[in-house]
Amino acid sequence: MSEATMMSVPLTLERIVERAAGRLGHVEVVSRRPDRSLHRTTYGKVAERARRLARALVAAGVKKGDRVGTLMWNHAEHLEAYFGIPLAGAVLHTLNLRLHPDEIAYIASDAGDVLVLVDEVLLPLWEKVAPRASGVRQVIVVGASKPPAAPMLDYEAFLAGADDATPLPTLDENDALGSCYTSGTTGRPKGVIYTHRSTLLHTLVTALPDSLDVSRDDTLLPVVPMFHVNAWGLPYAAAMVGAKLVFPGPHLDPTSLLELMEGEQVTIAAGVPTIWLGIRDALEKQPRKLASGVRMVVGGGGAEQLIRDFDRLGLRLIHAWGMTETSPVGLVSRVPPELAGKPDDFTYQLRARQGVPPPLVEVRVRNEAGEVPGDARTSGELQVRAPWVAARYADGATPERWTDDGFFRTGDVATVCPHGFVALTDRVADLIKSGGEWIASQQLESALMAHPAVQEVAVIGVPHPKWSERPLAVVVLRQGQQASPDELRTFVADKFAKFWLPDAFVFAESIPRTSTGKMKKTDLRAQYKDWAWA
Amino acid sequence: MSEATMMSVPLTLERIVERAAGRLGHVEVVSRRPDRSLHRTTYGKVAERARRLARALVAAGVKKGDRVGTLMWNHAEHLEAYFGIPLAGAVLHTLNLRLHPDEIAYIASDAGDVLVLVDEVLLPLWEKVAPRASGVRQVIVVGASKPPAAPMLDYEAFLAGADDATPLPTLDENDALGSCYTSGTTGRPKGVIYTHRSTLLHTLVTALPDSLDVSRDDTLLPVVPMFHVNAWGLPYAAAMVGAKLVFPGPHLDPTSLLELMEGEQVTIAAGVPTIWLGIRDALEKQPRKLASGVRMVVGGGGAEQLIRDFDRLGLRLIHAWGMTETSPVGLVSRVPPELAGKPDDFTYQLRARQGVPPPLVEVRVRNEAGEVPGDARTSGELQVRAPWVAARYADGATPERWTDDGFFRTGDVATVCPHGFVALTDRVADLIKSGGEWIASQQLESALMAHPAVQEVAVIGVPHPKWSERPLAVVVLRQGQQASPDELRTFVADKFAKFWLPDAFVFAESIPRTSTGKMKKTDLRAQYKDWAWA
Repeated sequence: MSEATMMSVPLTLERIVERAAGRLGHVEVVSRRPDRSLHRTTYGKVAERARRLARALVAAGVKKGDRVGTLMWNHAEHLEAYFGIPLAGAVLHTLNLRLHPDEIAYIASDAGDVLVLVDEVLLPLWEKVAPRASGVRQVIVVGASKPPAAPMLDYEAFLAGADDATPLPTLDENDALGSCYTSGTTGRPKGVIYTHRSTLLHTLVTALPDSLDVSRDDTLLPVVPMFHVNAWGLPYAAAMVGAKLVFPGPHLDPTSLLELMEGEQVTIAAGVPTIWLGIRDALEKQPRKLASGVRMVVGGGGAEQLIRDFDRLGLRLIHAWGMTETSPVGLVSRVPPELAGKPDDFTYQLRARQGVPPPLVEVRVRNEAGEVPGDARTSGELQVRAPWVAARYADGATPERWTDDGFFRTGDVATVCPHGFVALTDRVADLIKSGGEWIASQQLESALMAHPAVQEVAVIGVPHPKWSERPLAVVVLRQGQQASPDELRTFVADKFAKFWLPDAFVFAESIPRTSTGKMKKTDLRAQYKDWAWA
Repeated sequence: MSEATMMSVPLTLERIVERAAGRLGHVEVVSRRPDRSLHRTTYGKVAERARRLARALVAAGVKKGDRVGTLMWNHAEHLEAYFGIPLAGAVLHTLNLRLHPDEIAYIASDAGDVLVLVDEVLLPLWEKVAPRASGVRQVIVVGASKPPAAPMLDYEAFLAGADDATPLPTLDENDALGSCYTSGTTGRPKGVIYTHRSTLLHTLVTALPDSLDVSRDDTLLPVVPMFHVNAWGLPYAAAMVGAKLVFPGPHLDPTSLLELMEGEQVTIAAGVPTIWLGIRDALEKQPRKLASGVRMVVGGGGAEQLIRDFDRLGLRLIHAWGMTETSPVGLVSRVPPELAGKPDDFTYQLRARQGVPPPLVEVRVRNEAGEVPGDARTSGELQVRAPWVAARYADGATPERWTDDGFFRTGDVATVCPHGFVALTDRVADLIKSGGEWIASQQLESALMAHPAVQEVAVIGVPHPKWSERPLAVVVLRQGQQASPDELRTFVADKFAKFWLPDAFVFAESIPRTSTGKMKKTDLRAQYKDWAWA
């Protein structure tokens, strides 16, 4: 059988762009502009402009494998970059605008970005980045209200200059398509490089009914930034199936988002818990006529209470898990048919777990004794293997993050329940070591979050002369609410062994977070390292 | 970028079997036995036995790429063969038990089957095949009620003899997984060879919400035989997502099928129109408590009337199209959101079309003038390209079936509507040439099928001294119903140009069909070739 018996059709982004340009060309793409107006276009126009962008990039000297950066909010032009940069054979490198300018410059330089697309409204940020990102040969300004200062180019003029005769490169499914950097809660951010194949497979599996269930009947609002693990791959999933896309631009406040959800009848919205906390509070104040059956995909920790609150409001929150290294979808938490009809408490606890892997994803949870039993108690490190999981970092750093048999060590501590649902209990780095035992800070946080007065909470390990470390809870109260340390401790006392309960509760205005919404416990640990235990 | 940045996880059947063996191990697989009893097992047990089968095959000398035949009804052991034969590195070759023994023997010899699994109840058929299938070294009898006559082996004993230490071969995603032969309405049957990659991609796309929408909430009944294009790939789709599988065994009468659908609360059933005609009539006589929202997937021509009838009965019929060469899913007909709410007549006509291609499938309809316009009128040949479409036949025959730019010529005449829905109007071979114009026989058949007295109808071209050919309709009336030729002609007169209307109507007891339910128009044309025109 030397000759292939089945057609050789590579899994490249062309498969998605061809559909967007043709059969799905009429489907709408809506973007909120910086001036709050709504801009309406279609997949057909986006795909056509993306092809122009690809030709213009090639004509501008961008070679196969070159990195092209984007510093943009979520909008149709960013989708054009999602399509056009890989079609040019280049690597879409989304820069995180929430980082410190020095960090953005480090990442752009480390990746080797040769050209960057920048929103006009983000030029003030870019100006702080530029002096330290000397590898960038060309800046193209998107959404320019006036001609950009030379040598910067205007995006529309750049597209207009594209020549249909410029040939686009032939793509192989193992070619690089995009790159994101880890958010770096520890150490320097590290680059992950996605391929066309990994992206196409991730897209197919993400859209499956038991994953995020994305169809052309859907209207999808990625609140999660397009500079954050490709907005969890949702723009590609929407474009593949022909779901209408709604982009929030820079307006991420609850009122703006709810207006969009109501006005465009959004059926799937995706974002981190912080977003949904705000949406919940706004909806409790003012009900909205949202689409029936609207689902909110939450990544990065979905506390049980939040899921309950949204059910009460008539919205379904679906908990999913992933990381930059996993493209990102690795686990999705939905109640399987054999567990439907169980008591509410059981179901909510299940839904608050990170879930089960979709097809093509293998996960396991291991500790020193091997794979942990499905007792929802024994913990180990979550390890994952899939065609869309990184095999290495771009620079080859920390090869010890991969096991000898090819699994990625997530650095997350997890348990597995009897039904196979994985729950993250902590980051390995955030475990609290007390008297020779481990305490999982995230489990304490989830339990405390259920208290009606608690808005946010972080539990950290603080050095202790006798126990090595003891847990301290940093609590942000909901506006106008009160709760004493004793009340909070009593509230969770029956859920944990006594030695797990925080010895101290401090009240704060906010919890420090990374640009992607993760709690910065390193900062908190530094702040409270000299805590005087009673 | 010499080193792969993403994990290299091949798209092999191991990805599906691992899930079936582990995470989905508890999901039920139900089979109707020849004695009508129901046998219950699980994916876990099926996967474990499939691995034993694979090891036993390897131990029996089956080498990578060897063909292993199956001559079986739809049941759990056939699913074990679906898993186990490819895991052994061999090629699953499903033999069509409805063919003439000589034809089965030709196909088994042409494929080079070295070993065959045969249902005990099909041994009388195999005995007629065996003398002409001399390449088969070993016959293994499945479901044996008594020890098979030597040198045949008992399947259970064969599995019991498997040694866990026998190593299974390493699989590449481009290795052959299975083989089916075309049904051969014209010429000798030709072999198509599916690969692991083509099967995995087909499985993923088939399960998507806008395709057949298969989830673990579903209970799937493949009425379509497992020897007919792998039961349209549905056993693999069910196993990948964890849908419960229900197999009808040899009992395909409407009452047996409806009992299964009711008893197991089937949510998706799949089969050819003949099956649904019988189910419709049986349901009209005796209503059943079926699962709510049950979908019936129909391949091979779904007349509008049948879709209407099932809607009235509360069942949703979904029309899909494919062929042996396309794995098979190439088109699915579902109403897109922008056309929801249109008048019934419009919607039913749309649903009766073959539909639109899912992701990764490209289709086009071409005639001498190039691609046809989307006017639902101009016809051309349907051509298709996808990672799960054959690039060649096993023996390299008829290379002219592929275009220079790599599309497969289906041999189907089609039109495209303004919404991009493809409708097959005829086989190229079945077009009727009358006075220099083409008449599409299938369009006449669909229109005549809407008459309440008509059970089945075939329209064929019969030689005519003046017009070259003229259409003749062979009509099977529904039991107890009557209709005259004039009445039938008048019934469709306003839908077609006058010269399209059949000049003759003859009434028959049945229409000759191939083993896969397709009308054998070659037989009818031979029968009526000397028709005396008035």
